[in-house]
Amino acid sequence: MSESGYFRPEITAMAGYTPGEQPQGGKFIKLNTNENPYPPSPRVVQAIRHTLESGLVRYPDPLATAFRQRAAEVLGVEPDWILCGNGSDDILTIVTRAFVGSGQLLRLPSPSYVLYHTLAQIQGARAEEVDFREDWTLPESFFQASPELRLAFLPNPNSPSGTLVSREKVGELTRRLPCPLLLDEAYADFADTACVDLVREHERLLVSRTLSKSYALAGLRFGFLIAQPQLIRQLVKVKDSYNCDALAIAGATAAIDDQAWLRENVARVRATRQRLTTALAELGFAVVPSHANFVWCRHGERPSRELYEQLKRNGLLVRYMDYPRWGDGLRISVGTDAQQDALLALLKARV
Amino acid sequence: MSESGYFRPEITAMAGYTPGEQPQGGKFIKLNTNENPYPPSPRVVQAIRHTLESGLVRYPDPLATAFRQRAAEVLGVEPDWILCGNGSDDILTIVTRAFVGSGQLLRLPSPSYVLYHTLAQIQGARAEEVDFREDWTLPESFFQASPELRLAFLPNPNSPSGTLVSREKVGELTRRLPCPLLLDEAYADFADTACVDLVREHERLLVSRTLSKSYALAGLRFGFLIAQPQLIRQLVKVKDSYNCDALAIAGATAAIDDQAWLRENVARVRATRQRLTTALAELGFAVVPSHANFVWCRHGERPSRELYEQLKRNGLLVRYMDYPRWGDGLRISVGTDAQQDALLALLKARV
Repeated sequence: MSESGYFRPEITAMAGYTPGEQPQGGKFIKLNTNENPYPPSPRVVQAIRHTLESGLVRYPDPLATAFRQRAAEVLGVEPDWILCGNGSDDILTIVTRAFVGSGQLLRLPSPSYVLYHTLAQIQGARAEEVDFREDWTLPESFFQASPELRLAFLPNPNSPSGTLVSREKVGELTRRLPCPLLLDEAYADFADTACVDLVREHERLLVSRTLSKSYALAGLRFGFLIAQPQLIRQLVKVKDSYNCDALAIAGATAAIDDQAWLRENVARVRATRQRLTTALAELGFAVVPSHANFVWCRHGERPSRELYEQLKRNGLLVRYMDYPRWGDGLRISVGTDAQQDALLALLKARV
Repeated sequence: MSESGYFRPEITAMAGYTPGEQPQGGKFIKLNTNENPYPPSPRVVQAIRHTLESGLVRYPDPLATAFRQRAAEVLGVEPDWILCGNGSDDILTIVTRAFVGSGQLLRLPSPSYVLYHTLAQIQGARAEEVDFREDWTLPESFFQASPELRLAFLPNPNSPSGTLVSREKVGELTRRLPCPLLLDEAYADFADTACVDLVREHERLLVSRTLSKSYALAGLRFGFLIAQPQLIRQLVKVKDSYNCDALAIAGATAAIDDQAWLRENVARVRATRQRLTTALAELGFAVVPSHANFVWCRHGERPSRELYEQLKRNGLLVRYMDYPRWGDGLRISVGTDAQQDALLALLKARV
């Protein structure tokens, strides 16, 4: 029997999600996967060290109660409105498995986070990709009810564009869709507005967050979901019992506890984002105004792939993306000022 | 619409897996979830501390290459025969999702690890439970081919019994089943024999391991799978991209590197297991000879539930289990000698 014979046909047929390059050598300036350019709150390291000294022999708390309590205070909800995950990818996986059965329909905008499509494929579901308009607003067809629709994903701010759908539009979307809406707020801390509080009014709205970006903890794997408790109770059944480890729970709890650090970090990233946007425009790039910690851009004359390769040859990684019906471009993470100076120097030098 | 209306009917219908009690206060003697009574190798703490100092800003290596390389040397395979997971529960989830579609058949022995049944439920699959014989051997029906069968689970040693199916029987089972066999070797380090090397001969054999038991790292969440590379390549598509965090990868790599620590730990646990078995028998328990770090027992006269409750009142947790068609009993983890003395004193005192 061939290697594919034992697998579900959906699995062998799919290509699999390819994460951004993660060279482990450390020689690259990495502006390709939207990591934070600054270290996390020092309290995170202290908390992890403390837990490490207490030992790792015991299983962790299955529900990460300490994190839920602290996050609930910060977000103005109760702890049972929060579900913790091994990164927000774990949250997206849990939500997809809970709502969407084989052959059922899942809606997502395009271009956006490619993983949504992969999750539909693994589940054997049908993914209905709805293209953004040219100005990165959602077309009317994204709002329309459809009897087979079981779940919709909306990243807000979106990746790769960094654009934001307004709170009003999110509210309208939640009301008009017949199914749950997973609003992926991975980048919301860098934006002017967020929608967590809308969860109170809308049972069908679920908001996911991650500590990988604004809390500078991509290496720790911690994300969470905010939704009404009757939904959280069902979603808990789908997660692995011990999906968050003891060190991650300790670090995440310390991270969300330090909101002063978050505000300062976000202010720095937003300031650098503004400088990056201006500088790229001056170099002849069309840059989409961003609400995230990256910008999406294309040069007026120089092909995006060549630019990506030129930068990589010189030890600087950005993300080259090529979308069907949309074309290609570069998604560049906001780095430190020094990292951005290196980027701009390379773009000017054309070496 | 009611709370259940948005979920797949399988999800609302299921009870969900209930993990063993994990009191976070630390006042209990915990002999209920088969954690190791001794701390992990000191190299684990060093490695985690080192990685913590290097920072958590970057995403971890998606494939945990460092662990795969070291584990491959220890196990006598190549790195591409290994898939890493966020605990072996993550591995079991990945394997179930990859092989078993909605409505398809998954075989598992009973009584065994209750999670297998839960994974089938989440997937919308049918679980065919085959009872062990009275002597904890597998009946002929477990070996029989069936056209709809897509996956079989076999924990070896089994939980709650601690019993072992021989290498010869595992080989026979792999040959006769028409589908992949997931051999769950969570407790194999405590047994006389293991089956990892059989993976070379059998494409359909997949062996899972965990660092939660014999490596004393339940809090870290790290498990792995050994299977032929053409299977690993497909399974990678089903896992979350960054399913293992940077600290877990560092700690796990250091743990598997310290085989001397493992041998010493296992020898201690096995010696204490022998003493526990003898002492419980002397107190009137029927004890199944165990190849794991726990024993399964029933008292000749005193009901298991009462014993469980008596021990819990006195600050000592064991696992009370009640299985359909099989009845109840106590699964008691092997602790330190002092913990076991406390257990035996309570059982004698009947307070």
